[in-house]
Amino acid sequence: MKVVGLDEIRPVATPALIFPAVRAALIAHAEGRTVVPPPMVLDFPRGDCHVKAGYLAGSPYFAVKTAGTFDAGNNGLMLVLDAAAGGPVALLADEGMLTAWRTAAAGALVTDAMTPLDVDEIAVVGTGEQALLQVLWLRELRAVSRVQVWGRRSDAVDTLCAQFAAAGIKAVAGSGRWGAACVITTTSAREPLPFELFQDAVHITGIGTDMPGKCELPIEVFDGALVATDDHEQCLDHGDFGNAVRAGVVAPDIDVAVGAVLRDGADRERRSIADLTGIGAADAAVAGAVVDQLSG
Amino acid sequence: MKVVGLDEIRPVATPALIFPAVRAALIAHAEGRTVVPPPMVLDFPRGDCHVKAGYLAGSPYFAVKTAGTFDAGNNGLMLVLDAAAGGPVALLADEGMLTAWRTAAAGALVTDAMTPLDVDEIAVVGTGEQALLQVLWLRELRAVSRVQVWGRRSDAVDTLCAQFAAAGIKAVAGSGRWGAACVITTTSAREPLPFELFQDAVHITGIGTDMPGKCELPIEVFDGALVATDDHEQCLDHGDFGNAVRAGVVAPDIDVAVGAVLRDGADRERRSIADLTGIGAADAAVAGAVVDQLSG
Repeated sequence: MKVVGLDEIRPVATPALIFPAVRAALIAHAEGRTVVPPPMVLDFPRGDCHVKAGYLAGSPYFAVKTAGTFDAGNNGLMLVLDAAAGGPVALLADEGMLTAWRTAAAGALVTDAMTPLDVDEIAVVGTGEQALLQVLWLRELRAVSRVQVWGRRSDAVDTLCAQFAAAGIKAVAGSGRWGAACVITTTSAREPLPFELFQDAVHITGIGTDMPGKCELPIEVFDGALVATDDHEQCLDHGDFGNAVRAGVVAPDIDVAVGAVLRDGADRERRSIADLTGIGAADAAVAGAVVDQLSG
Repeated sequence: MKVVGLDEIRPVATPALIFPAVRAALIAHAEGRTVVPPPMVLDFPRGDCHVKAGYLAGSPYFAVKTAGTFDAGNNGLMLVLDAAAGGPVALLADEGMLTAWRTAAAGALVTDAMTPLDVDEIAVVGTGEQALLQVLWLRELRAVSRVQVWGRRSDAVDTLCAQFAAAGIKAVAGSGRWGAACVITTTSAREPLPFELFQDAVHITGIGTDMPGKCELPIEVFDGALVATDDHEQCLDHGDFGNAVRAGVVAPDIDVAVGAVLRDGADRERRSIADLTGIGAADAAVAGAVVDQLSG
């Protein structure tokens, strides 16, 4: 039983390791080669914690991970267990970073796969960790010429713009009538974001709606769009897709699997939405890859 | 972050520590002072794993635990996390024993609370670990003069009888027309056990029906009985109580909480059933008590 801290994890948990692991997990999930029970959510006085679990058929491991959002900050870990005997293999005390990176990788993969090839300006909505990471990981896959940052707090927008600048990416505070063909939403909103943010969007990736009660995308954007979900049932239950279905904007069976999009490609000229709620199979794949890398 | 093995856990995880922790958790759960999401179940080629989580209001910790049943044996662990900041506090690598002990404690508490005071002969159905532990832990609370052991495999019955004898408890293989006023079922059955096993029962405690598809008790035994459930929704979803409700034998609102029985007592003269599916709050309470004891 190894306990591995973030200092040991960071050097091996590179995009080169995480992208293939997440991609394989999403495709396996689309093909029914995973075991992913519905996640657990615990609400506390000063935060909440999501517990996810997953297994990829044929893997020697399964994983149980926690991802907590607390007043004191985010935290989390991944517990890797032996899929043949149930015992602990390793505890990755990653302080929530593996969840952050796998979320960024999943978003970047599907954003890249569904957005027209000539689009190189991205709007991000939200100013948290994922607003930065979604773009940084996307830039590993395609050119990003400029980022618009949309947020309610101008100081947080300025800080994020500075972070992008430090990473060599031109960033401007979103305002007025600007719009982008590719919009990534990363908020913890519980009401739909303003429709105007999406009026020029050809592709939208939403990663913030990860539990019941949350809501980022105005339901109108779903009308006529190609919709990709990372997990059909989860997205129906608590994703933005589910919000649109319950409102009667789209039927509950119009979505395609993100994994199928990654495997087969998608019509990039069609307006599209990717609804990501986060799947335990991606956690299991990333945790397993880290363990293999550390022990290899 | 401490990793604590079974050798360190065993000396502190005594009935004196576990009984009060489980009792407090069941009562807190009955009073709505817990956070317990529905558990996760993962099925593997060679076993399954249940993941539970729980939090008791006011505790500095919450817990996520795994309990696996594999061809290679049972295994499990309890992860204790900081309820204010989400970080790991301790990993109790208990090899599944804390789950076994808290299950035995919960069963013994409710069996003792609902069984007439003069009943001192117990029938156990099943020959696994819990068949032994349910009686050993019950004996911490009341006299047990004799145990009938009912099982399909006579060699396993004989082995268990020998284990009881070694613990100073007279045990006999169940057969023919024998019956007991108190019956504890501990099997992994997926079909109802024979009704004859319960024909003399004044109290039944069922602990084996812990996931969808399992079934120990014939639905007829519920008719007219006082029914106590450790978690109303869980027992409706996948306990024997739920099986009886779906069959129309009893209404879905006739049950009382096990925690209320422990707090207020029950009419011991009335025929009764305790349906235990196992709650994450009990795991959290036991794990927290062990951590406190080890660090105190």
